[in-house]
Amino acid sequence: MSQPICVNDFEAWAKNKLTKNAWDYYCGGATEEQTLQDNCAAFKRYRLRPYVLNDVSQVDTSSSVLGDTIPFPVCIASTALNKLAHEGGEIASAKAASSLGSGFMQSTVSTTSIEDIAEATPGSLKWMQLYIFKSQKMSKGIQGVDGSGIKDFATKYIDPALQWKDILWLKSISKLPVVLKEIITAEMAQKAVEHKVDGIVVSNHGARQLDGVPATIDALPEIVKAVNGKCDVFLDGGVRTGTDVLKAVAMGAKAVFVGRPVLWGLAYDGENGVKSVLSILRDEFRMSMQLMGCRSVKGLQEGKNLVVPQTFYPSNL
Amino acid sequence: MSQPICVNDFEAWAKNKLTKNAWDYYCGGATEEQTLQDNCAAFKRYRLRPYVLNDVSQVDTSSSVLGDTIPFPVCIASTALNKLAHEGGEIASAKAASSLGSGFMQSTVSTTSIEDIAEATPGSLKWMQLYIFKSQKMSKGIQGVDGSGIKDFATKYIDPALQWKDILWLKSISKLPVVLKEIITAEMAQKAVEHKVDGIVVSNHGARQLDGVPATIDALPEIVKAVNGKCDVFLDGGVRTGTDVLKAVAMGAKAVFVGRPVLWGLAYDGENGVKSVLSILRDEFRMSMQLMGCRSVKGLQEGKNLVVPQTFYPSNL
Amino acid sequence: MSQPICVNDFEAWAKNKLTKNAWDYYCGGATEEQTLQDNCAAFKRYRLRPYVLNDVSQVDTSSSVLGDTIPFPVCIASTALNKLAHEGGEIASAKAASSLGSGFMQSTVSTTSIEDIAEATPGSLKWMQLYIFKSQKMSKGIQGVDGSGIKDFATKYIDPALQWKDILWLKSISKLPVVLKEIITAEMAQKAVEHKVDGIVVSNHGARQLDGVPATIDALPEIVKAVNGKCDVFLDGGVRTGTDVLKAVAMGAKAVFVGRPVLWGLAYDGENGVKSVLSILRDEFRMSMQLMGCRSVKGLQEGKNLVVPQTFYPSNL
Amino acid sequence: MSQPICVNDFEAWAKNKLTKNAWDYYCGGATEEQTLQDNCAAFKRYRLRPYVLNDVSQVDTSSSVLGDTIPFPVCIASTALNKLAHEGGEIASAKAASSLGSGFMQSTVSTTSIEDIAEATPGSLKWMQLYIFKSQKMSKGIQGVDGSGIKDFATKYIDPALQWKDILWLKSISKLPVVLKEIITAEMAQKAVEHKVDGIVVSNHGARQLDGVPATIDALPEIVKAVNGKCDVFLDGGVRTGTDVLKAVAMGAKAVFVGRPVLWGLAYDGENGVKSVLSILRDEFRMSMQLMGCRSVKGLQEGKNLVVPQTFYPSNL
Repeated sequence: MSQPICVNDFEAWAKNKLTKNAWDYYCGGATEEQTLQDNCAAFKRYRLRPYVLNDVSQVDTSSSVLGDTIPFPVCIASTALNKLAHEGGEIASAKAASSLGSGFMQSTVSTTSIEDIAEATPGSLKWMQLYIFKSQKMSKGIQGVDGSGIKDFATKYIDPALQWKDILWLKSISKLPVVLKEIITAEMAQKAVEHKVDGIVVSNHGARQLDGVPATIDALPEIVKAVNGKCDVFLDGGVRTGTDVLKAVAMGAKAVFVGRPVLWGLAYDGENGVKSVLSILRDEFRMSMQLMGCRSVKGLQEGKNLVVPQTFYPSNL
Repeated sequence: MSQPICVNDFEAWAKNKLTKNAWDYYCGGATEEQTLQDNCAAFKRYRLRPYVLNDVSQVDTSSSVLGDTIPFPVCIASTALNKLAHEGGEIASAKAASSLGSGFMQSTVSTTSIEDIAEATPGSLKWMQLYIFKSQKMSKGIQGVDGSGIKDFATKYIDPALQWKDILWLKSISKLPVVLKEIITAEMAQKAVEHKVDGIVVSNHGARQLDGVPATIDALPEIVKAVNGKCDVFLDGGVRTGTDVLKAVAMGAKAVFVGRPVLWGLAYDGENGVKSVLSILRDEFRMSMQLMGCRSVKGLQEGKNLVVPQTFYPSNL
Repeated sequence: MSQPICVNDFEAWAKNKLTKNAWDYYCGGATEEQTLQDNCAAFKRYRLRPYVLNDVSQVDTSSSVLGDTIPFPVCIASTALNKLAHEGGEIASAKAASSLGSGFMQSTVSTTSIEDIAEATPGSLKWMQLYIFKSQKMSKGIQGVDGSGIKDFATKYIDPALQWKDILWLKSISKLPVVLKEIITAEMAQKAVEHKVDGIVVSNHGARQLDGVPATIDALPEIVKAVNGKCDVFLDGGVRTGTDVLKAVAMGAKAVFVGRPVLWGLAYDGENGVKSVLSILRDEFRMSMQLMGCRSVKGLQEGKNLVVPQTFYPSNL
Repeated sequence: MSQPICVNDFEAWAKNKLTKNAWDYYCGGATEEQTLQDNCAAFKRYRLRPYVLNDVSQVDTSSSVLGDTIPFPVCIASTALNKLAHEGGEIASAKAASSLGSGFMQSTVSTTSIEDIAEATPGSLKWMQLYIFKSQKMSKGIQGVDGSGIKDFATKYIDPALQWKDILWLKSISKLPVVLKEIITAEMAQKAVEHKVDGIVVSNHGARQLDGVPATIDALPEIVKAVNGKCDVFLDGGVRTGTDVLKAVAMGAKAVFVGRPVLWGLAYDGENGVKSVLSILRDEFRMSMQLMGCRSVKGLQEGKNLVVPQTFYPSNL
């Protein structure tokens, strides 16, 4: 295998380096994997309409995440058990993100404690994925739980009785911003806004949960419209190229999160591998902005018809 | 081959265990098998739109069939000559259904008499598929005919002159509820309602009859709309996963019937195999209800836009 | 290879029996063969909506062709050089048609003279495909030209200056009905009607001429609508099953013509092979009428929504 | 390999004759090559609707390019480094075009100087592709730069600050007509017209730049409509057959440009190979005009519904 030069190249390397169990665990999706395929395929169902002859000698790829500025709109999604991919584990991933100014989202099912990650990457943008447990006391105390064995733990104790009012409870016990993940319809986005969340991640849990839900990029437009600027909207699922990032951003996402590609980078070469993956997406995103004739994320989001569904073509003559 | 963990896994086992003749007879469809493929493929053309943060700690999967309650909306469709699949034959299938509280539909072309099935599964929900014979006297007497050789018998004597008024005759000679199978259009569903049937099975005879008719799940919405609650609507054809069940139910079916998967389970391990197939569908259905945020079949059927055709996406920006 | 039981089965036999040259000549289409594939594929893009519980004990498959009754709506299309397929040549094909009461269309590029065919099949329905030659005198005299070598002849002398007014000339010199072939749009059909033709064959010359034109079954509806009953409409191209025949007839064709399948039958077993091909289509057509709940061609053509494009499904919920 | 008889046949020959580097450089497209595939595939998504019984004994295939008449509407697109394909390089390509009366567009990244090409093909139609450099002085002087090494040169010095007003500057320093390439949307076409360009090439740079933009033939209609006759519209990308040419012309292009097919012809047999490629397209275009019943490019462009998107079919019954 030759050196990886695009994000998808890392996948073959990872398959070679990982144990079969780890590979199967990471790459699989729910049931018949229809949504797993669709998350990637859906991006290809949108067409780009560039503006030529704009001065793109200066391009600003930065975006903002809950008020913080990030140098490019790609962060690391929460993925479980990073030490299965590489001994460096979550610390390697978090340091890669930190070194590029990107954000890192820790999984509830982490193989590293939140304290260790915090110590390794001081001052960087970090998110904590929080499953709500049957005992609310336990949810409060999750920031002190050791990572090992957390999976069984979570399976037993995650609360299926969770309700919208619990969001209000969560906001009442913490001053941290609360972002709701796994939102895939306008109806739920509207409800999230009514419950004062600070952000929404348009996500289908990496297509690992309910097969048959829409691809995230397909769901994004109705959610952006429903939210109407009242909180930040993010997206994960299927992002593999700089034009994927650009499509999501032009359609209203403040940033995208990447999961499996980060794991492939981690398996390939630990922190350096993850850095490569993020850098490739950053550079491809900048290049695609230039080719689109856009100088800023704001320009991308305010442009008219920069991204259209393929059904826009062929035009009726 | 590893142990089957989803319904489709049973197919490969069945192919190995059955004689070539039995396999060919069971798995084939009409002409070019376009509808055979489409029955399954069509389910994948609908997208699920989950409601998150509903309390789903208590989920009730039960539905009702002609007034009787069943614990989950999956019953066994009539399939011919079950003893070709396993020596246990129709009794094994019926007992599997009975043990789970599910219903069993006996084929006109059965290798077991209706009396033997009744004796083996007292008190359980049973249906009798009835071909109408040229001699109405013979149709009346079909509940005493021995199963063996019934196929040739049926071919010779089934009545191509059957008409809507014969439904009225049938209702006049029996107090049993009459359910019309092989309804695939709104027009016919309306006519069935006018002729006072108690239920309709949206079906294309397992795609074994007229190639080119719509997939059953594609036909379901127009039929549910035409029936407008005046009788129960059921569906068979192409159901292989719990989300398939959920889609059919959310689109208005009281229950679905499965045919070939039951035969594969029967071939795999007799009564136990059939029980496995039904249990998998039951468990997958319950899980998908939870992931959809629905606590009851009523909730599934009253929710707005829980299931949409794929043409809903990508939304025009 | 086992005995052919459907029309497509004859193709593999023919490929084995024919010289490579003959096979290539018969099976090929224009340029990239997009239309060749589409002629068959398009039929599968229509869905059947059967009427159940009609008395179909008596089914009348007959149709009419320019006033003559034929027992089933399938005739033989003009195909060139039949002796390449089998020594029996056009006579074998014509006799097969004649023995079943079907019609035979002789090609301009025939390997048998029109007189010999007439002598071999007295009293049967026959058509003569007529290319118009540069010398109108020659067109008049074509019924005395010997078949051999007619291809080079035709290539050199066929008239590219042909115009609509020539149709009027043709009608002025003969009392025979004139049917226009290779009509594929409503605009041309309307013009044909204005020029008093007796019939139209919706055709793209077996997809051997201009690649990229519509499949014939796709073009049929607009032509039937434009003609509005003022002349007979026929169709060739892509017919391989009885449901194909039924779709074309239900959409307004008085009869369909089959070309390549007849050649495959001819190659397989001369007159008997052709008879088999026609009989299979006849029997499949009758069976599909019964399954559609239709007792006559008139019933097929007057039924509402018996055939719909696949875009009819999935219905918006 | 047998002698090439259609344009696509040259590709396999070229692959055999070229070094791997040259082949990879010429045949590749941007990122995942979605647009590369789509440029060709999109042509097949349009259907032709011929007019029969028009006198096509005399067909005029000529078109006009910026006021000059060309005998058929196919010219050579700018492609880089022609000497990699054949020692004859740009001179061989230009002479092939010249000998058939077609036009030749020189690449900025040429392996032959513009003076040498001019000397080799006096009096023929020639275009010069111009990248605008950071130093406007350098852009002025580009007609004296030697071809060798121009690629590195261009990469370093091409100006990303280029703006619409630079078009006006360009027009102010030269009396030559200015044609804008890489226009793929109506918005940009309108802007080009406002900036007084003499022509537009609907192009996505051979799908080598921004993956995900529309196929050129899909973009053509909106651009022709936006331009509304105020300047010439041309197209490159995906043209491989005479019916592709016809579709582009019928949809409003004055001419099409072919790039890779010319390189394959060049690799196959230098000037003669390129002549073969152009001649095949010319002859196929003439033949398809005849089969469409059109006698002139004007006729093609004024005809109603000669070319329609495939979504025109199947018509709703």
